[in-house]
Amino acid sequence: MTAIGKRWMMSAIGQPLLEHALELTPPAASEVTVQIAGCGVCHTDLGYYYNGVRTNHPLPLALGHEISGRVVAAGSDAESWLGRAVIIPAVIPCGQCDLCRRGKGTICPNQKMPGNDIQGGFATHITVPAHGLCAVDESRLRKAELSLADVAVVADAVTTPYQAVIQARVQPGTLSVVNGVGGVGGYCAQIATALGATVVAIDVDPKKLEAIAAVGGAAKTINAREVDPKDMKKLVGAFAKERGLPPKEWTIFECSGTAAGQQTAFGLLVHGATLAVVGFTMDKVELRLSNLMAFHARALGNWGCVPELYPAALDLVLDGRIKLSQFVEQHPLDSINEVFESVHAHRLSRRAVLVP
Amino acid sequence: MTAIGKRWMMSAIGQPLLEHALELTPPAASEVTVQIAGCGVCHTDLGYYYNGVRTNHPLPLALGHEISGRVVAAGSDAESWLGRAVIIPAVIPCGQCDLCRRGKGTICPNQKMPGNDIQGGFATHITVPAHGLCAVDESRLRKAELSLADVAVVADAVTTPYQAVIQARVQPGTLSVVNGVGGVGGYCAQIATALGATVVAIDVDPKKLEAIAAVGGAAKTINAREVDPKDMKKLVGAFAKERGLPPKEWTIFECSGTAAGQQTAFGLLVHGATLAVVGFTMDKVELRLSNLMAFHARALGNWGCVPELYPAALDLVLDGRIKLSQFVEQHPLDSINEVFESVHAHRLSRRAVLVP
Repeated sequence: MTAIGKRWMMSAIGQPLLEHALELTPPAASEVTVQIAGCGVCHTDLGYYYNGVRTNHPLPLALGHEISGRVVAAGSDAESWLGRAVIIPAVIPCGQCDLCRRGKGTICPNQKMPGNDIQGGFATHITVPAHGLCAVDESRLRKAELSLADVAVVADAVTTPYQAVIQARVQPGTLSVVNGVGGVGGYCAQIATALGATVVAIDVDPKKLEAIAAVGGAAKTINAREVDPKDMKKLVGAFAKERGLPPKEWTIFECSGTAAGQQTAFGLLVHGATLAVVGFTMDKVELRLSNLMAFHARALGNWGCVPELYPAALDLVLDGRIKLSQFVEQHPLDSINEVFESVHAHRLSRRAVLVP
Repeated sequence: MTAIGKRWMMSAIGQPLLEHALELTPPAASEVTVQIAGCGVCHTDLGYYYNGVRTNHPLPLALGHEISGRVVAAGSDAESWLGRAVIIPAVIPCGQCDLCRRGKGTICPNQKMPGNDIQGGFATHITVPAHGLCAVDESRLRKAELSLADVAVVADAVTTPYQAVIQARVQPGTLSVVNGVGGVGGYCAQIATALGATVVAIDVDPKKLEAIAAVGGAAKTINAREVDPKDMKKLVGAFAKERGLPPKEWTIFECSGTAAGQQTAFGLLVHGATLAVVGFTMDKVELRLSNLMAFHARALGNWGCVPELYPAALDLVLDGRIKLSQFVEQHPLDSINEVFESVHAHRLSRRAVLVP
């Protein structure tokens, strides 16, 4: 096979992304070539493009790590994937090393993240290791009235908070607080709800709060702009009391990726609390770290999600327990520069998926 | 029984502690009266006495929560303790509530901490709930050449880092860093070593580093005053490489209870790291909380130690795997005011145990 595809490459910070021809050569052993159905535009891509966060692979590089598509070529040991609809994990561990064998693929030293370690998904095709691919049942996809491009966002936007919720051990009866219910936090709220938590959603954007309440992802919403930060914990505590939920052991998901949001989330620590740091910001925050000790609380970070958890996260989507179609919108890949600008300017209320 | 004991009471911040007579009435059901062998002087006591940290019980109050002694009276349901040598947990959970039943006694809402919630151990006697008492085998104590007063420090100074080490899942092959090897951190280093870790001890006091190395509690010592904070991680990394220890998954114990120490400890995060926040300070620190996410790391606090873990911690002491006698010194309870002053002025290099 030597066919021609296309990819959109970043050559320098803020410079227009440019279309390049892409020669498709047969994948190596244990690798597959995926014809891309869609690739989501993530905050992380914007960090590379606008804010100078450095990619591990030198520029020029195609960004994009939320990828779904169909396997159109497979190397030896990967032939069973041929023709199948798949989601490519945002972080692909090697699957071989000691850490991978112990279920710690997110810190695998040989991991590959498309659009960071290797060429990414803003392209017609991508070649990746077959390890960790998540098969998509297309009949269930149709029943759920979703397209293969839609579920691109399962890689990262859905699975990252899914791993955070699993790590935090959310269960029926848990009070969860999700701070920031945008592209990632909205799914976080829905996932925590699906796993039995009663969710309080906090955001500065009333539209996002309405949207997440409308799909049943939050039992209560709080506009952070309307509440003195000092009163936030009291407000959540009053809600807990009203609902007969415990005053301790809250699980708090910081998904805003802002210093102010991290302050808010840290300020919600109660005895036995778990704070999941899901969003990323380069900014530092000033906080009393000793509160973790005084409250016997913990703060957990997670980098992406191990491939082992993708099928369960996808199940929630295909079963309709996570609503997805209300939160994504498809755009032609050719409009990538305009879409990046729109996302950067916060003009889109849904997550953009670029479709070749 | 109506006998007379004594206790030394705090009536106001920094005011001399005064001896009060203590009438001994028979303990209530499920309670015991302990004739105190020794009570350790902890940083936390000094926080109440010098820095205005508020006790939950109103003043006047006898401070002291690191208590060993002998049960001299027992209420109904607690008679089996009569005559036994015991360590009283620094935090006594109720043992009845849902949290206690789930092994989360440190966040039990009905917990009692001597010298904070109830009258403390700077006294000849104390009456406490029998729940959680840790029996001391006096023949093993003698073989270990320790007195009952010596093992008072097992409550808190030994068990608090013990719980931190257990929570952090230290095991053979782990690289542990202990920041601050004073009254608590020294035991932390010894415990991590006893459980199989290779320990790097960091402190600003060369004498403390020497003392902990001398008992085999650290494989490497670093004087924080002699290292640029930016180079600390590199230095530990080089040691890990030299010893063939993993460059990831370090367990870092912050025992200094200072903002500077917390900065140092947080700066040591590597992929998959666990940061245990053992020391307490009211001061805030400025840090990039998102590093927890980028490194898939976690920060764990623990408030004291559940009574269930006391016997295992005491075993390490009685087996000689934690050296204790080099790190404690006994003083008469009558000299409590002088001892508080000496501890506050950092004139003692060992933990003071007050003996009635």
